[in-house]
Amino acid sequence: MAAAAAAGAGDGPEEVPNRRVVLKRYVTGFPSEDDMELVAGAARLAVPPGSQAVVVKNLYVSCDPYMRNRMSKHEDPSYVPDFVPGEVLVNFGVCKVVASGHPDFKIGDLVWGMTGWEEYTLIPNPESFFKINHPELPLSYYTGVLGMPGLTAYIGFFNVAKPKKGDYVFVSAASGAVGQIVGQLAKLTGCYVVGSAGSDEKVNLLKTKFRFDEAFNYKKEKDLNATLKRYFPEGIDIYFENVGGAMLDAVLLNMRLRGRIPVCGMISQYNKEQPEGTRNLFCLVAKRVRMEGFIVTDHFGEYRKFEEEMVRYLKEGKINYVEDVADGLEKAPAALIALFTGANVGKQLVAVSRE
Amino acid sequence: MAAAAAAGAGDGPEEVPNRRVVLKRYVTGFPSEDDMELVAGAARLAVPPGSQAVVVKNLYVSCDPYMRNRMSKHEDPSYVPDFVPGEVLVNFGVCKVVASGHPDFKIGDLVWGMTGWEEYTLIPNPESFFKINHPELPLSYYTGVLGMPGLTAYIGFFNVAKPKKGDYVFVSAASGAVGQIVGQLAKLTGCYVVGSAGSDEKVNLLKTKFRFDEAFNYKKEKDLNATLKRYFPEGIDIYFENVGGAMLDAVLLNMRLRGRIPVCGMISQYNKEQPEGTRNLFCLVAKRVRMEGFIVTDHFGEYRKFEEEMVRYLKEGKINYVEDVADGLEKAPAALIALFTGANVGKQLVAVSRE
Ligand SMILES: NC(=O)c1ccc[n+]([C@@H]2O[C@H](COP(=O)([O-])OP(=O)(O)OC[C@H]3O[C@@H](n4cnc5c(N)ncnc54)[C@H](OP(=O)(O)O)[C@@H]3O)[C@@H](O)[C@H]2O)c1
Ligand SMILES: NC(=O)c1ccc[n+]([C@@H]2O[C@H](COP(=O)([O-])OP(=O)(O)OC[C@H]3O[C@@H](n4cnc5c(N)ncnc54)[C@H](OP(=O)(O)O)[C@@H]3O)[C@@H](O)[C@H]2O)c1
Repeated sequence: MAAAAAAGAGDGPEEVPNRRVVLKRYVTGFPSEDDMELVAGAARLAVPPGSQAVVVKNLYVSCDPYMRNRMSKHEDPSYVPDFVPGEVLVNFGVCKVVASGHPDFKIGDLVWGMTGWEEYTLIPNPESFFKINHPELPLSYYTGVLGMPGLTAYIGFFNVAKPKKGDYVFVSAASGAVGQIVGQLAKLTGCYVVGSAGSDEKVNLLKTKFRFDEAFNYKKEKDLNATLKRYFPEGIDIYFENVGGAMLDAVLLNMRLRGRIPVCGMISQYNKEQPEGTRNLFCLVAKRVRMEGFIVTDHFGEYRKFEEEMVRYLKEGKINYVEDVADGLEKAPAALIALFTGANVGKQLVAVSRE
Repeated sequence: MAAAAAAGAGDGPEEVPNRRVVLKRYVTGFPSEDDMELVAGAARLAVPPGSQAVVVKNLYVSCDPYMRNRMSKHEDPSYVPDFVPGEVLVNFGVCKVVASGHPDFKIGDLVWGMTGWEEYTLIPNPESFFKINHPELPLSYYTGVLGMPGLTAYIGFFNVAKPKKGDYVFVSAASGAVGQIVGQLAKLTGCYVVGSAGSDEKVNLLKTKFRFDEAFNYKKEKDLNATLKRYFPEGIDIYFENVGGAMLDAVLLNMRLRGRIPVCGMISQYNKEQPEGTRNLFCLVAKRVRMEGFIVTDHFGEYRKFEEEMVRYLKEGKINYVEDVADGLEKAPAALIALFTGANVGKQLVAVSRE
């Protein structure tokens, strides 16, 4: 992933205020809004002479669960770099180019990629950004269904789970950014799809807007094994794993012969100092199950194919999409925390500037 | 898997004594010799008129860890049928046909397949047996390197782990029936191979007889994560999983990008009333690891190809093989228990009749 550097140093007339969200301290356990801070800064809307950088104006930034990992200090390097206290948070966002030294990017271009939680960001390596090919759709979609989480759903479901028509599919965190797309792709593939989510409102969304066959509120279930047996009397062919913990253990008991578990994430473990143990792994042998982790950034080469397919589904009404938009950078810390309480309904993002 | 029925009922002159090992009671926790019993019986060396059964004389029977699962009573059916108290134990063995109603089997044929822990067994479905194509090698090899465990190593390593030359391979229970073959196949494939085992004698075997690059006695290691970091500074591409538990958790921390874990078994968990929890599963995501269970019986269709390849390796001295032979059915219960204390050195089997 490309690191984004703040627009800053350098002479030039166009210095503007640049509010930014920085990490205040490394986090252990459950994060709080107070672990982040909105600070004043300044940016120059020009690139250093001779560089191939661009300066972007940030329109929407995405809140993603994996950011929690970056808020902790890791002795051994993690799979993503740690954030640094005092420095701006970075993540995927939708941006407009406002200054460019790069031949492939011109002022006014709409792009998405790894940017800062601030108003303006200097991007030293704009090659890592994607141009937005479909600005006729809401630009914010490029933080979700048409961006990283959408591609995550697509890769995890098609490339990793390798679904067949008629498969029994279970999705956890099903109403979220990734889950809502997985479920709908599974329905389009001819699968039977059940989702779990953490509120009745979300369950309702799953059954209506997202057309899941069934859905349940896992917080109301006492015995997840029994719950899954009820929804999957024949067992589960594909479990799209977003949460880990107790749900994974219950799922393992209910996998079908030669089932597949694309491991997308385990959000229930991200704030634990020591992860919970998964006890039922022998089911992998007994049922010949494949469990496979993946990271979406390995698959950015498939983005353009995905984008065209997803745009078609959206325009044809074959995929519905729900997002949860926080307005303004000052709301960004709370919006990020919301992912871990489940307060978000649909894809969580922050509108930095709704131009 | 074919169930074997005892040779018995029916008239005919050839009734002979038939000692047999029966399950005395369902087992919970660690099994003991006393959970089994050697009892006297009788067999007729003739097949029921008109049937396509055969009667076999059992020469060698195999002791395999999965038999522990069959000694417990399962409320929901397990992946293999439960043994029944008072009835003979069944498992893979090497046999000679002594009576046949089947056109494909004649008296004197040497075969291997699912038979009883007794002197003679009536096999109602001999089609499930393999003829022994290479009686010039020790017949007992067909309980191990040329039988079920050998094929397990072959399938788990080649079909599931999909090795490449230069891969870093780690094998647990490495001196056992499956492990010793996995390690040697990995060496033949050009991999770097480290094994773990539970005694210095076994470690020595691994480094000399089985030509592993390195080996260690896991019982002497205090911090398995540190141990693995020492043997695999670059990380592990393939972990051939035989034991589960603490070893699996340590391995997960040391997997390399796009590593593979063929899950063959988890013997450290077989005697636990509640399995231990595996905490480091998020490593599957961070390192894009595939963990995949398999059962050898699904792959019996590849047996003949495997047999020829393995016979060639054995004859060329490219694969060495160590077995641990208990003499006589009366030793069978102790030999089975030995698998769970690690008392066996190499493939554990029982010579029923060394004719
Ligand atoms: N591998 C990759 O490349 C990749 C890429 C993107 C995302 N991911 C992973 O995909 C998963 C979903 O991400 P997303 O962006 O779609 O987030 P999201 O589902 O939009 O938001 C997170 C949701 O997780 C649920 N949750 C939070 N804490 C939980 C807990 N303790 N137990 C169970 N559920 C909990 C909440 O929904 P409920 O109300 O339903 O509990 C919350 O709304 C995450 O694990 C994330 O790390 C992986
Ligand atoms: N999936 C399949 O189709 C299939 C087929 C055959 C076998 N298997 C599995 O493959 C594995 C090896 O089987 P095998 O026939 O080759 O047996 P084996 O290795 O010949 O014998 C079992 C060995 O396991 C080790 N062990 C016992 N208890 C242990 C514990 N608590 N922790 C760690 N190691 C322990 C002991 O060796 P140490 O002295 O080294 O501890 C013991 O000698 C087993 O898990 C078995 O269930 C699977």
